[in-house]
Amino acid sequence: MFIYSEKIYTPSGYQSGYLEVEDGKIEGIHDTIEKEEYIDYGDKIIIPGFIDVHIHGWATGSFIHQGDEQSLARMSKDLVNMGVTSYLATTATDHLDNLKSQVIAADRFGKEWTPDMGADLIGVHLEGPFINEKYKGMQKAEYCLPPTVETVDDLLNPVSDGLVKLMTLAPELPGAAEVITYLNQKGIQISVGHSAAEFEEIKELKDLGLGGFTHTFSGMRGMHHRRLGVAGAAMYFDDMYAEFGKQTGLTVRPEAFAIVYKIKGPDRITLTTDCTGLAQVSEKTYHYIREATFEPESDKLVRVTGDDGKTELLDKTDYSSVKDIELGFLPSVRNVVKNVDASIGDIVKMASENPAAYIGVSDRKGRLEKGKDADFLVIDGEFNLYDTYVKGIKQKIEK
Amino acid sequence: MFIYSEKIYTPSGYQSGYLEVEDGKIEGIHDTIEKEEYIDYGDKIIIPGFIDVHIHGWATGSFIHQGDEQSLARMSKDLVNMGVTSYLATTATDHLDNLKSQVIAADRFGKEWTPDMGADLIGVHLEGPFINEKYKGMQKAEYCLPPTVETVDDLLNPVSDGLVKLMTLAPELPGAAEVITYLNQKGIQISVGHSAAEFEEIKELKDLGLGGFTHTFSGMRGMHHRRLGVAGAAMYFDDMYAEFGKQTGLTVRPEAFAIVYKIKGPDRITLTTDCTGLAQVSEKTYHYIREATFEPESDKLVRVTGDDGKTELLDKTDYSSVKDIELGFLPSVRNVVKNVDASIGDIVKMASENPAAYIGVSDRKGRLEKGKDADFLVIDGEFNLYDTYVKGIKQKIEK
Repeated sequence: MFIYSEKIYTPSGYQSGYLEVEDGKIEGIHDTIEKEEYIDYGDKIIIPGFIDVHIHGWATGSFIHQGDEQSLARMSKDLVNMGVTSYLATTATDHLDNLKSQVIAADRFGKEWTPDMGADLIGVHLEGPFINEKYKGMQKAEYCLPPTVETVDDLLNPVSDGLVKLMTLAPELPGAAEVITYLNQKGIQISVGHSAAEFEEIKELKDLGLGGFTHTFSGMRGMHHRRLGVAGAAMYFDDMYAEFGKQTGLTVRPEAFAIVYKIKGPDRITLTTDCTGLAQVSEKTYHYIREATFEPESDKLVRVTGDDGKTELLDKTDYSSVKDIELGFLPSVRNVVKNVDASIGDIVKMASENPAAYIGVSDRKGRLEKGKDADFLVIDGEFNLYDTYVKGIKQKIEK
Repeated sequence: MFIYSEKIYTPSGYQSGYLEVEDGKIEGIHDTIEKEEYIDYGDKIIIPGFIDVHIHGWATGSFIHQGDEQSLARMSKDLVNMGVTSYLATTATDHLDNLKSQVIAADRFGKEWTPDMGADLIGVHLEGPFINEKYKGMQKAEYCLPPTVETVDDLLNPVSDGLVKLMTLAPELPGAAEVITYLNQKGIQISVGHSAAEFEEIKELKDLGLGGFTHTFSGMRGMHHRRLGVAGAAMYFDDMYAEFGKQTGLTVRPEAFAIVYKIKGPDRITLTTDCTGLAQVSEKTYHYIREATFEPESDKLVRVTGDDGKTELLDKTDYSSVKDIELGFLPSVRNVVKNVDASIGDIVKMASENPAAYIGVSDRKGRLEKGKDADFLVIDGEFNLYDTYVKGIKQKIEK
């Protein structure tokens, strides 16, 4: 299959030409071809698909609230509408039994998945349970656990090697050093998050395997000039990645993002959504930042009641009725380019290249070049999405 | 007079040659000269003298504790040992009568001063009295005043036009907008300091004439990602200058300085000392950051008692006995280059060029080029000081 565009974003910059796809992989990008049959996207831009390494759920599916293979199937199907072509199913801080059944479901779904099913589930991100209660945010305090290798093994042993690709933990907790060392040996990336760590603690443990920060600024103290903490460490260490959840302007002010962008530039920031699939809550849930309560009414309906008293019933199985509850990847990207002077290539770094490098899949994801998975998006200069391809398969997009 | 060096730091980079000085000004830099008489500094480096725009006192003189012409004479004499060739005598938040007599003393001293007397007093920096009690730091709460044009006039009317070059104020105080506008019209630079301002307040008032921030991070809240405040504004606004007091590592951690250096680079940072001449206190004074009490015992002696109980009597009229109480400009610069990857030229920007530009004296100070005052230092690559020249006059240096 050949796909033509005047602007294909490759690691060496834009290229005009024909993207050749074979067996789900990029075979090459050619200036000319002899075949007459190709898909012509003209002046539309082709960029690598987005990789969301921090997503619990979105729209009609929620890994944390439902936790089964079907929920992942719905997430995969929905996410391609947002330009996400691969993701890490992300757990929350929950009962260990739930976490186990969730990682097992992810393992199974990953094996059954085929590219016509939507976004590629490439692994699991364990957000907790080794986090600090003090900065739990929306996580549940009762399930915060002290870090132990035994608990890690409880979660890793039932599933395939390499499934878990990232863990968020609070490095100041007793036992964390041992767990960090253990995860690092297993090739699992580690992010600092929901943490009250001092700057000095991060400095000391960094070389054991701390790669970056989960939803930078959220779940940590503000930076003080005599007590820099996690936020200060995120701004100080040039080699560590700063993850930012969806850019709504609510959790992190655009100017705070802009400050980190000044420091790190696009090379050490990763964009994620941290969406949860709020419509799929299993019990009445209050969200303090959205100032609204979400309550399941039936298998099909969810009631959303704002602090202002306004209430509405939504069909949680219908994509169009729930897609706007949480900001998806694509509108979040549009907010980033409204806020900072980021080019399309800068966005590709933050949304595709960096996440792939961070979780160790850049051998196959994150860039458009020979040998990589044919995961790509057809967009225009304003990040309007025209088509999403996953392993060379054109997805059905709902707008 | 001709002065030779292999490395003269000019606005266009290093130049090897002969600096020609005439009538206290730089006449030019020449590759060769016909005269045989010149001062040969060989491979030593010549850079512009430092300009300290925030200094209340140092060593044997204190403008805030003594406030007379003699105190300024002692400061001028002492400061050249630290590479400071010009400065703004800086008031603190004090009784209005004291402030008036201080600015009058500065005006008189400025007129009497000759280059053989040491560092050039080029004006006054009013730190307060329009500051926010909440972030007063070492300032006195009882003298914090609401901003009014009348109070400004009280301080400006008794002295020469142009003497006051900089004012530090808290822009969130009622009446601040009018005062900022007034100062700006008079060509007086304005720094935000000792302030509880919100980010949005600074954003709104910025264009009225807010140029930068006084001792960035000190006298303000830490930055939070939903409430960026003064610290966030200092990091966000690229065009505003961030002043840093002496780099002891005590008030602002080196990493906090390094974060701002990553953002602003050397072009929008100014180095100052914010020294006070602690040995010259007129009453028993506790310093919470130094954890020591300073108590005058006589006209000649000061007692310094640490929180650890250790006490010593120092001769406050003797330079060598008090010079190490507060870190001077030069060792502060050495701490900066230990902390961040700053070149000699970067230091010149932060310590000479930027302060000159900030307070509007770059027509005559801050750079080594034809027509500028011949204020310069002879140093080596480690910022050891060999000689200080003020308006072409070689100063007597005590080491």
